[in-house]
Amino acid sequence: MLIVMRQNASEEEISAVVSAIEELGFDARPIPGSNRTAIGTIGNTGPVDDTAIRGLSGIKEIIHVTKPYKLASRDFHPQDSLVRVDKTTFGGNEFPIIAGPCSVESEEQIESCAEFLSSRGIKLLRGGAFKPRTSPYAFQGLGLEGLKLLKNAGRNHGMKVVTEAMDMITLDDVVEYTDIIQIGARNMQNYPLLKMVGQASKPVLLKRGLSATLDELLLSAEYILNEGNQNVILCERGVRTFDTHSRNTLDITAIPVLKEKSHLPVIIDPSHSSGDRKRVIPLSKAAIAVGAHGIMVEVHPTPAKAKSDGAQTLDFTQFDLLIKELKMLANVLKVTL
Amino acid sequence: MLIVMRQNASEEEISAVVSAIEELGFDARPIPGSNRTAIGTIGNTGPVDDTAIRGLSGIKEIIHVTKPYKLASRDFHPQDSLVRVDKTTFGGNEFPIIAGPCSVESEEQIESCAEFLSSRGIKLLRGGAFKPRTSPYAFQGLGLEGLKLLKNAGRNHGMKVVTEAMDMITLDDVVEYTDIIQIGARNMQNYPLLKMVGQASKPVLLKRGLSATLDELLLSAEYILNEGNQNVILCERGVRTFDTHSRNTLDITAIPVLKEKSHLPVIIDPSHSSGDRKRVIPLSKAAIAVGAHGIMVEVHPTPAKAKSDGAQTLDFTQFDLLIKELKMLANVLKVTL
Amino acid sequence: MLIVMRQNASEEEISAVVSAIEELGFDARPIPGSNRTAIGTIGNTGPVDDTAIRGLSGIKEIIHVTKPYKLASRDFHPQDSLVRVDKTTFGGNEFPIIAGPCSVESEEQIESCAEFLSSRGIKLLRGGAFKPRTSPYAFQGLGLEGLKLLKNAGRNHGMKVVTEAMDMITLDDVVEYTDIIQIGARNMQNYPLLKMVGQASKPVLLKRGLSATLDELLLSAEYILNEGNQNVILCERGVRTFDTHSRNTLDITAIPVLKEKSHLPVIIDPSHSSGDRKRVIPLSKAAIAVGAHGIMVEVHPTPAKAKSDGAQTLDFTQFDLLIKELKMLANVLKVTL
Amino acid sequence: MLIVMRQNASEEEISAVVSAIEELGFDARPIPGSNRTAIGTIGNTGPVDDTAIRGLSGIKEIIHVTKPYKLASRDFHPQDSLVRVDKTTFGGNEFPIIAGPCSVESEEQIESCAEFLSSRGIKLLRGGAFKPRTSPYAFQGLGLEGLKLLKNAGRNHGMKVVTEAMDMITLDDVVEYTDIIQIGARNMQNYPLLKMVGQASKPVLLKRGLSATLDELLLSAEYILNEGNQNVILCERGVRTFDTHSRNTLDITAIPVLKEKSHLPVIIDPSHSSGDRKRVIPLSKAAIAVGAHGIMVEVHPTPAKAKSDGAQTLDFTQFDLLIKELKMLANVLKVTL
Repeated sequence: MLIVMRQNASEEEISAVVSAIEELGFDARPIPGSNRTAIGTIGNTGPVDDTAIRGLSGIKEIIHVTKPYKLASRDFHPQDSLVRVDKTTFGGNEFPIIAGPCSVESEEQIESCAEFLSSRGIKLLRGGAFKPRTSPYAFQGLGLEGLKLLKNAGRNHGMKVVTEAMDMITLDDVVEYTDIIQIGARNMQNYPLLKMVGQASKPVLLKRGLSATLDELLLSAEYILNEGNQNVILCERGVRTFDTHSRNTLDITAIPVLKEKSHLPVIIDPSHSSGDRKRVIPLSKAAIAVGAHGIMVEVHPTPAKAKSDGAQTLDFTQFDLLIKELKMLANVLKVTL
Repeated sequence: MLIVMRQNASEEEISAVVSAIEELGFDARPIPGSNRTAIGTIGNTGPVDDTAIRGLSGIKEIIHVTKPYKLASRDFHPQDSLVRVDKTTFGGNEFPIIAGPCSVESEEQIESCAEFLSSRGIKLLRGGAFKPRTSPYAFQGLGLEGLKLLKNAGRNHGMKVVTEAMDMITLDDVVEYTDIIQIGARNMQNYPLLKMVGQASKPVLLKRGLSATLDELLLSAEYILNEGNQNVILCERGVRTFDTHSRNTLDITAIPVLKEKSHLPVIIDPSHSSGDRKRVIPLSKAAIAVGAHGIMVEVHPTPAKAKSDGAQTLDFTQFDLLIKELKMLANVLKVTL
Repeated sequence: MLIVMRQNASEEEISAVVSAIEELGFDARPIPGSNRTAIGTIGNTGPVDDTAIRGLSGIKEIIHVTKPYKLASRDFHPQDSLVRVDKTTFGGNEFPIIAGPCSVESEEQIESCAEFLSSRGIKLLRGGAFKPRTSPYAFQGLGLEGLKLLKNAGRNHGMKVVTEAMDMITLDDVVEYTDIIQIGARNMQNYPLLKMVGQASKPVLLKRGLSATLDELLLSAEYILNEGNQNVILCERGVRTFDTHSRNTLDITAIPVLKEKSHLPVIIDPSHSSGDRKRVIPLSKAAIAVGAHGIMVEVHPTPAKAKSDGAQTLDFTQFDLLIKELKMLANVLKVTL
Repeated sequence: MLIVMRQNASEEEISAVVSAIEELGFDARPIPGSNRTAIGTIGNTGPVDDTAIRGLSGIKEIIHVTKPYKLASRDFHPQDSLVRVDKTTFGGNEFPIIAGPCSVESEEQIESCAEFLSSRGIKLLRGGAFKPRTSPYAFQGLGLEGLKLLKNAGRNHGMKVVTEAMDMITLDDVVEYTDIIQIGARNMQNYPLLKMVGQASKPVLLKRGLSATLDELLLSAEYILNEGNQNVILCERGVRTFDTHSRNTLDITAIPVLKEKSHLPVIIDPSHSSGDRKRVIPLSKAAIAVGAHGIMVEVHPTPAKAKSDGAQTLDFTQFDLLIKELKMLANVLKVTL
């Protein structure tokens, strides 16, 4: 059970609710958010009789939670959430494509990508400036300079931009320059960072961790939602299994399951899941057919020279083929590319 | 390196090849098949200079294997294999649907399924007679009686039938009554059974094991092909991972990878992979979009009363919806449903 | 609920029990074994009131099953089962070591192993005659000839022997020549084979499948026990995970869990789990410390020349070191090596 | 290839090395650390002929890397590293036990633990102050207050303390109050945090991520070592697999493999891997037998009332039994408890 207090609830009102819960034999846990306090009830194994609580003052809502997450749950929010970024909407009948290089490498490279992609009607440009790399000796991104190059490329070509926030200290810069804050798979359970992006003013693209269950993904979304940021887009990008024929195993079943459990939009990243550009087109077609709310794909003018993830990156010709194939499917699936 | 001997190669010819291989410092391993002998070369870590062997008599072909399997490999057989079952072809631009109940339960049940499915243009009827069940106390199938009921239902409604062979002793009965022999996931590495179906006169539907790599799946196909049966259809049906939101994790990336590695047709089983009928339609749409050569789905007049796998089984209304959705996609994907 | 009928129960008595169950609204499933019939109750989701059944004739026992398996469960058989093979006992305070080559390769090889091992007090000799190999081109074992060589080597050196049964057709030969029938990981869910070894007169060493849960392993044991063979030894040999630093991931926690769930003895195979002889000694030490009832290790006079699994096989010097290290631990752990 | 520059190497010297690498046709990547610059060579697939580089000025060392990590590798540092914390040494022939509650909950609780544990000769007290919790509604720890209570309890009872650092902002507090900084499994790939603890003055206990390979664990250690902090202790705490009989699957084989690959000490956490206090004693015995350099176990005066992880926590009586059993083994294994 979760008791959501009004925004202006006083300390006394909160204390009274806590006492009432404790008298029922449970543990009460006030959860201060940036806008309001919620009070969780811990220790009950089944539904709680809330008669003794309902009448207290300062309460906005009593929610009988049947899942470990609440704000992310469709029980709590039956209709689909729409996340709007300028002219693009995630979660409705559009199928947005986020495209761009793994890393921003130079002005020339990112401008070239933006020019090409915008000419194909793509509205969202991705590019990493702060890169989480398994090896300390691998290219770590251009940092703030990369953010600026990305932002400029977007502005020059009428695109909004997506980039990854890696830590609490550089988050402010990311928020300033980006339109969508990406949280990468390795940071899906970096809770302090999730709380901070929960207080940010930009939508969040939350990637599923390498071995995260869907409930864990939704609990991570809950961290963000609970701080007041309702614009969360989920991203399935493959999980780690015994299999080695693809870099990760794309869990395509996650899409209908997440759409049932949650109201949040969910997209697929066919580049990171497969690790192989030859798989990007078939997996993107599967993504649109299974009902995903979009895809994020890596594109580079010359993938062979990319400083990271070249093997999974499309060149411009391949990207054109991808769009052509998706358009045919979008048409019969009644979604707008 | 694999030396394939002519069918009528003599023992002396085989011995001469073995000696030549051994003189090169490798181990020679004659592999007697039902029709011919092949001689494997073991111990080489790279390509072998075959000069000393090429001139020997009785040799049909020398194959320099770069993968652990050969007959199943596209290197060896570049064009797509077509597996024909009456009016249906797997591996070309058809998208055959195999449908029917998990188990044959009664004459009424299987006739009802066949009548319905044939009225929808479905040409292949599935139904289990010998059931591999995790528990010895679970319904084990009707056995020979089930085979007869399935065959009759097929004949009465102009359908060909698919059923599982579970062991070497009942295989003869299965071969007599079925049109496609299914090898289930638990038997994917039952090599004596694979060898026996390799000598059978019916096509084989080989399901991927619960934790089999694609190379292991293709090596199991190799056991069948190596005995002379070239009509093998592969089936992706989900693998076991940490995740629990579906019964198994459908590895959809396996489809493009298998199509690249092998010439054999490959279909998807969305019922067993998900274990939940609500996922069957979205996963079937993903299957046709990703390029699978067909699907196998479970259908039952009243799934709630099915003796096995009811939760993942469609009823007739849901099946009609599935067909309607697939038809739209088939149209733009240029495949024939 | 499971109703175990007396051995001489008549068809009428069985029918009466079936009717009584059906009148309670459940499905009754007679499960004929070779010695007796049991009747499973299907469809109840909780405990069943057995008042209407208890008084019927022909019933030996009514068992209220709370786990999917019964005969393998400690609920049903609280004390540890002891499996005796000549002078060796599994399941008590001995720590038997089964040792020998992966495959029987020649008389010289297996005699040499037996001579060495018996001189070290080892009483159980392993050696494969029928080998399940992932590739059809790999060494498949010496077959019947291998069985005879193994048996002879055992007899010549006062050892009992362990070898794998791969299929229903060669099982009779295996049973004739071996003292313990091994069921390999790939056949853990080959139910027809399990039923046949359940009717055999020799103890069974049942290896856990590559991705089998412990409940699935115990259900496979249940197939054997249910046919009347009570001498089942379980074997943990590693499971398949994302990790590649060992061939399989040894699930050492399975030992205390299986000992809690079941009364059956459970041993560890450090050779197959690791796939690397350098790990055999530390893992064997972990096995004895964690409370396993024994180990099975691969030993060969010259591992580098072994026809299978050489990388994980100890030579005689390494085996001596293994014994020396285990003896020290056995002493303080109060188990007899 | 990695070129380590002297501490005082000039920009010109660094540029000269970069140019020399580029002339060889490779990509040069300067990696500025806090103390020195290293230059990685990217793009070579095999060993590089370093003749043209060796003579340049400002170079401290040229390292031909054969593994993705270097500083963590035994190739680079053949002898075992010893990590000393007051009177305790990790990595030698001691078997240190880190013990204490999952979370610091109150002064009474942590003092009670410290009193008990110090009376048993335990020298290292653990306790979480900042807790990474899957749910935003779960107990998040006492924060700074918890750090102070832990430090005091340690001081009062002559123990050193271990606690987790969760983020870059609270790291300073953690470093001030703790003697060993724990990096939890969820943060194993939080690279900005790893870099910061790499510059801290306290030893680091680095836990393996839920689905991290051993190479990824060692690359995370490399991030810390590369910043100058050589006192890293690795911790195996179970990985996520398909199995559910334990919370995570303890990968005991990781111990001998890590000891071969790396010079760093490696301990086991039997509490988090199993999630069940009944497994802690057998797994701890396996840990000492397999050659781990210590364990970390959860202990609480009344586990049933613990605010987190109660199910896997020992009470004082159980802890005494653990110590008794480990002492017997330590004696024959020649390690000091």
